[in-house]
Amino acid sequence: MKVTILGASSAIQSPTNFNSSQVVSLNDRAYLIDCGEGTQIKLRQFYPKTSRLQHIFISHLHGDHCFGLVGLISSMAMMGRTNDLHIYAHVDLETLLQPHIAYFCVELPFQVTFHAINPREHALIFEDKNLSVYTLPLKHGIPTCGFLFEEKPKERHIIREKTAFYQVPLKDLPALKAGNDWVSPSGEIVSNAQLTKPAEAPKRYAYCSDTAYYEKLIPMIESVDCLFHEATFVQKDIARAKQNNHSTAQQAAEIAKKAQVKKLIIGHFSSRYPNPQVLLEEAKAVFANSFSAREGDEISI
Amino acid sequence: MKVTILGASSAIQSPTNFNSSQVVSLNDRAYLIDCGEGTQIKLRQFYPKTSRLQHIFISHLHGDHCFGLVGLISSMAMMGRTNDLHIYAHVDLETLLQPHIAYFCVELPFQVTFHAINPREHALIFEDKNLSVYTLPLKHGIPTCGFLFEEKPKERHIIREKTAFYQVPLKDLPALKAGNDWVSPSGEIVSNAQLTKPAEAPKRYAYCSDTAYYEKLIPMIESVDCLFHEATFVQKDIARAKQNNHSTAQQAAEIAKKAQVKKLIIGHFSSRYPNPQVLLEEAKAVFANSFSAREGDEISI
Repeated sequence: MKVTILGASSAIQSPTNFNSSQVVSLNDRAYLIDCGEGTQIKLRQFYPKTSRLQHIFISHLHGDHCFGLVGLISSMAMMGRTNDLHIYAHVDLETLLQPHIAYFCVELPFQVTFHAINPREHALIFEDKNLSVYTLPLKHGIPTCGFLFEEKPKERHIIREKTAFYQVPLKDLPALKAGNDWVSPSGEIVSNAQLTKPAEAPKRYAYCSDTAYYEKLIPMIESVDCLFHEATFVQKDIARAKQNNHSTAQQAAEIAKKAQVKKLIIGHFSSRYPNPQVLLEEAKAVFANSFSAREGDEISI
Repeated sequence: MKVTILGASSAIQSPTNFNSSQVVSLNDRAYLIDCGEGTQIKLRQFYPKTSRLQHIFISHLHGDHCFGLVGLISSMAMMGRTNDLHIYAHVDLETLLQPHIAYFCVELPFQVTFHAINPREHALIFEDKNLSVYTLPLKHGIPTCGFLFEEKPKERHIIREKTAFYQVPLKDLPALKAGNDWVSPSGEIVSNAQLTKPAEAPKRYAYCSDTAYYEKLIPMIESVDCLFHEATFVQKDIARAKQNNHSTAQQAAEIAKKAQVKKLIIGHFSSRYPNPQVLLEEAKAVFANSFSAREGDEISI
């Protein structure tokens, strides 16, 4: 699993720090999280294989998280896309966006399907052969949720010497990989543990933006491989963070620490801090394995 | 009068060539033409004094000319703007944009007023103390117009030696600047031509995008100081230009030549030409005083 940062700025973007958007990619599929203004430009720059992208997850309906959608859809149509597109968002998005799609993207050569999600509940909202996606209710001024991307459990690894020893035929290997014991032609039962090794644990990535400091989030993201948590403000601006339902970098790190995540990425920086280093230092003081998001970053999960 | 290019790309933008948008500035006022996705980013970069900007002119309702409006309005609100904003566009824009403004820009601290224009007629649609703006009907797939920005006539220049000789009092100078003759206390009439010199001719700037080759445009833009004309394609792609109601660089130059304009700026380049030099060379072969638009360019009119 890999995460590509397309933008990590809060409301007011700059030419090198666009609004929120990220690509989660796994095997040959890509999933977009949020779609601020200009996302299509950054996609072409940092993840041009948009035919792999069929599912878009929108955390909430503030403009800096969704103003890029109609432009992205319009350009996909002009570039000849035919694959359908699925958008998972608060129910209002469909009402707002459909008239624009109908007007600006005439004869759209693919279908755009909106899936209404309930940002207030922690639920499975999507799954395919690669992964499952769960909503993570957050604390913001309007209904908002993060997303937990959880890899599907992988198959167990065959121990080749053992299957050769028992003369396990090829046709029985899929059942072994799935965890079943093996029964020989003579009726002998060989336990799965003798023939296979456990698969790697499925990877988990949690995206949490935008949100105030919110401890109820902790059990839902416990021990994830990577947590992206918004860090709009530095600690001395905590009053402003509270007032706007945002977090400080230190608060993001406290959540990471309490949830015992493996790695923290902070982002959604206010434009008042031209250099995110000051935010990163505050996070690192609480949670050492912290990093700051920057356009074009690729994070291996 | 000055024109600042914010973007000069046709449909598919790049990080260094955004969709159509320009600022016309004169004295202490600024006027925006078109507003493609990301215009607010380029405005902050190349013309940050947005409080001077109160009037936006939209040529037509293709996304690459208007997808940046809601983001611009939203960010202006966040940055504390209180000046009202006026948008001149095809009547459908208001219907499309108002629900987005109402939803995404809650408690907007300024008024946005839409003024419906008829892109099919050549008419005065706006004037203030600085200039007049006229629509220029164009030939495109949907109703589209360019805009002619015409400086208000300037005052005549007083010839100081002459007004001193005739002892013209200060209070009579405004009438002289406006072109009136002067009557002395003894009743002697002194002609205005003796006391003043003509003002410089008012500057005229014509913006024509998007359009197919369209000779009906010529009388409306005759001898303008500067013509911006779209040049989406090179001459060998003329069939594609025709099919999409766009122009080639050579066609843009032919219009410039026939209208005897003083300077031609070409833009709205297709992303298929990474270097606009090839388009510029085709234009220059027909009209020598041609230039290609590039983000951040400032053109003195």
